[in-house]
Amino acid sequence: MIDANVLKRLGETLAARKGTDPASSYVAGLLAKGEDAILRKVAEESAETLLASKEGDKLHLVREVADLWFHSLVLLTWHGLTPDDVLAELHRREGISGVAEKASRKSQA
Amino acid sequence: MIDANVLKRLGETLAARKGTDPASSYVAGLLAKGEDAILRKVAEESAETLLASKEGDKLHLVREVADLWFHSLVLLTWHGLTPDDVLAELHRREGISGVAEKASRKSQA
Amino acid sequence: MIDANVLKRLGETLAARKGTDPASSYVAGLLAKGEDAILRKVAEESAETLLASKEGDKLHLVREVADLWFHSLVLLTWHGLTPDDVLAELHRREGISGVAEKASRKSQA
Amino acid sequence: MIDANVLKRLGETLAARKGTDPASSYVAGLLAKGEDAILRKVAEESAETLLASKEGDKLHLVREVADLWFHSLVLLTWHGLTPDDVLAELHRREGISGVAEKASRKSQA
Repeated sequence: MIDANVLKRLGETLAARKGTDPASSYVAGLLAKGEDAILRKVAEESAETLLASKEGDKLHLVREVADLWFHSLVLLTWHGLTPDDVLAELHRREGISGVAEKASRKSQA
Repeated sequence: MIDANVLKRLGETLAARKGTDPASSYVAGLLAKGEDAILRKVAEESAETLLASKEGDKLHLVREVADLWFHSLVLLTWHGLTPDDVLAELHRREGISGVAEKASRKSQA
Repeated sequence: MIDANVLKRLGETLAARKGTDPASSYVAGLLAKGEDAILRKVAEESAETLLASKEGDKLHLVREVADLWFHSLVLLTWHGLTPDDVLAELHRREGISGVAEKASRKSQA
Repeated sequence: MIDANVLKRLGETLAARKGTDPASSYVAGLLAKGEDAILRKVAEESAETLLASKEGDKLHLVREVADLWFHSLVLLTWHGLTPDDVLAELHRREGISGVAEKASRKSQA
């Protein structure tokens, strides 16, 4: 069984890298490069997710979605946000389902 | 404190929508439209994440990242995969950190 | 033979739509919605180009690339730029070829 | 005045690189890597276009749109298509304008 706290721990690790020596880790380096560098990675992993899905290799797809989530967490960290903020938003939507849920998201837009 | 099982429950809800009446819910409709329709949503939410980040509205950014994760979970569901597959991949990487972690991901590519 | 001035005329048509009644045409409406709405379309047509390429339908691919160019021209129009600005940049690169060309683009980045 | 045939010449140059030594030029190398490598570049340049637009640097934006068009032409070349195919499609749409034009594109979709 998967430890559901992996996201929480990952968020703490990412936050701890903020402001450390850019050469000390991949994440420290990416955070130091700044917002646009992180956004390029989010866009890149989104495209990789599309290509992996069309390729049909499930292991590859899982790795790309993990990369997409990972880099969106780096983005949140850059903004001072945490994985809990995303989980709280998904939790908030739990009571709202199906077509009503879609309508709700539309009306927020 | 956020219930860490929200992703697990969301994955179960998405899986239960598979094959149900496309008119019955947003997710059932999207799953029925198929892979390309889901991939268009992943790409759209990735672009929305970029725009929300540049806008600097943190609440908006959290909503867009939640949308991105949500639709990447719909994609996994379409492929018969679950949120646990992504969490397991993130967990697998936990022992590998910093520059070594990046090198590891590169060598898998 | 294709009239090479189609881009020039298209640029003029787009520029003429700027500031006109948003209800009067698709382009006037999109320009009135502003930069983020146009960027969403550029991102959407980029994703459609990927999907059409993987689908392998050449007519579909040509239509999506035309949509991508069209909406990038709407973006240039929004910024007060023209198709000639892009053609001039491509012309500027003409003398520079192969690996040297790539190196040149990299060093500008 | 810009030579409107720059796209035609660029298309011919790209076609001539097909099947040549991948080490001999950037384009030959990209064509040899294949469809997914080219699609990654199209997605990357689309994201760069978004970021350059938000940055507001017009020279940078023009360079990124030129990169986007360039790599979409490499994609067309990979599929055995030419810039003329895109220009012909844009020409075909010239008679159809405004809201009617949008409706027409929608009904093709």
